[in-house]
Amino acid sequence: MKGSDDDRRPKYQRIADALRDAVHSGEYGPGDRLPGENELMATHGVARMTARQALSVLRDEGVAEARKGAGVFVRAFRPLRRRGIQRLSQEQWGSGRSIWSADIENRALSVDQLTVSEEAAPERISSVLDLSEDDAVCVRRRRFVLDDKAVLLATSYLPMSVVAGSAITHEDTGPGGTYARLAELGHKPVHFREEIRSRMPSKDEAARLSMSAGTPVILICRTAFAEEGRPVEINEMTLDAASYVLEYDFDA
Amino acid sequence: MKGSDDDRRPKYQRIADALRDAVHSGEYGPGDRLPGENELMATHGVARMTARQALSVLRDEGVAEARKGAGVFVRAFRPLRRRGIQRLSQEQWGSGRSIWSADIENRALSVDQLTVSEEAAPERISSVLDLSEDDAVCVRRRRFVLDDKAVLLATSYLPMSVVAGSAITHEDTGPGGTYARLAELGHKPVHFREEIRSRMPSKDEAARLSMSAGTPVILICRTAFAEEGRPVEINEMTLDAASYVLEYDFDA
Repeated sequence: MKGSDDDRRPKYQRIADALRDAVHSGEYGPGDRLPGENELMATHGVARMTARQALSVLRDEGVAEARKGAGVFVRAFRPLRRRGIQRLSQEQWGSGRSIWSADIENRALSVDQLTVSEEAAPERISSVLDLSEDDAVCVRRRRFVLDDKAVLLATSYLPMSVVAGSAITHEDTGPGGTYARLAELGHKPVHFREEIRSRMPSKDEAARLSMSAGTPVILICRTAFAEEGRPVEINEMTLDAASYVLEYDFDA
Repeated sequence: MKGSDDDRRPKYQRIADALRDAVHSGEYGPGDRLPGENELMATHGVARMTARQALSVLRDEGVAEARKGAGVFVRAFRPLRRRGIQRLSQEQWGSGRSIWSADIENRALSVDQLTVSEEAAPERISSVLDLSEDDAVCVRRRRFVLDDKAVLLATSYLPMSVVAGSAITHEDTGPGGTYARLAELGHKPVHFREEIRSRMPSKDEAARLSMSAGTPVILICRTAFAEEGRPVEINEMTLDAASYVLEYDFDA
């Protein structure tokens, strides 16, 4: 009932608002082509520059995306659903399944880039993992791809004092992955903390995740704790926000 | 060890990268003033337009923000920590405290805009709340402000068939808020689902949250379930991502 904020707002803005409303009402669905510059010029009696500005407002908001030579389309949002709590339950990794498989239901999430190295811990990592300055960490960097689209960058840090000599330092960590190996080493993860933020991607992140303009990243920093509260892993994840819905289910 | 992707990248980009590295390494901390156009022109031997472009890259990424007449500053990130699970525990609202007070520790989060109305349920709401087409919902729209800065828009939908005649339909819901009243009405929330997305704000959202350019919003859609899985409330929240860290703590 507020409406009619200001009718003095510029014409391109009013056209953008009308198009956005049409998207939100479902008149244009995900993947539909929006009216082009020529059509907007004719319908609204405006100059090409005004029509172009209106479309660029929707692109900047992430409502629409341009495809070269084809026009401007409503961005399709068919996200991965990442269930934060169920996916980390022991039934997942305890049974030899990788926790990532919990993300994907019937969709093929796979690792297309993987490096494993021993490095000095960055300060923010050593302070959370309770390491001293000279302690090394095992760093596992992975990029995850869904349907040929990169969706997630994950960098995992584990104390070398815990994981040295185990399969965690190999590319293939074996059945159940890192958490199953930590359990065998006597450091079974029993508690998790996930911290979530969002910001615009850096150029490098945008390139590695092939992101469209106007799309933020979601950052998840997960800390895994073994018995007695000992932190045994930090996993810093960068997600293409256009590819993900995070879900947390819990009791009151 | 990848580095040196392309040294053919434009000069403003290389200056932006150097400044970003300096921010990430801590050389410039939150709230620090970055070198201005004149300084970048002198240091890098570039034209004013190039210096300006470099600074605008950092603004677009949300790394820095311009303050009128004062320069460009590293964006200070002193976020609210929103603990998703603890804040919804019965000990919170069961004891007469509002669940929002769990967000704020010693910081003064307050409601500066509040409307309560009876409306026809939008389709996405009626389908989740299991309502038929003619059923009405009580809609509570609130804006939350911290330190004079709007940080959160929340719109809560509850079936009128459940809440009619209760304090939930008043501006002041009384001690413990909506959830304490739902419990008294025999619909105590026992389970929650929070779904999280991120995207760029609409113009209206950006204005209502006084957001800086280059900052996304985090969307949380929370559904509260009573016994037997009956959904009794949907709360759609829009958060200024520069103001929040979400935290979820749970056992394996």
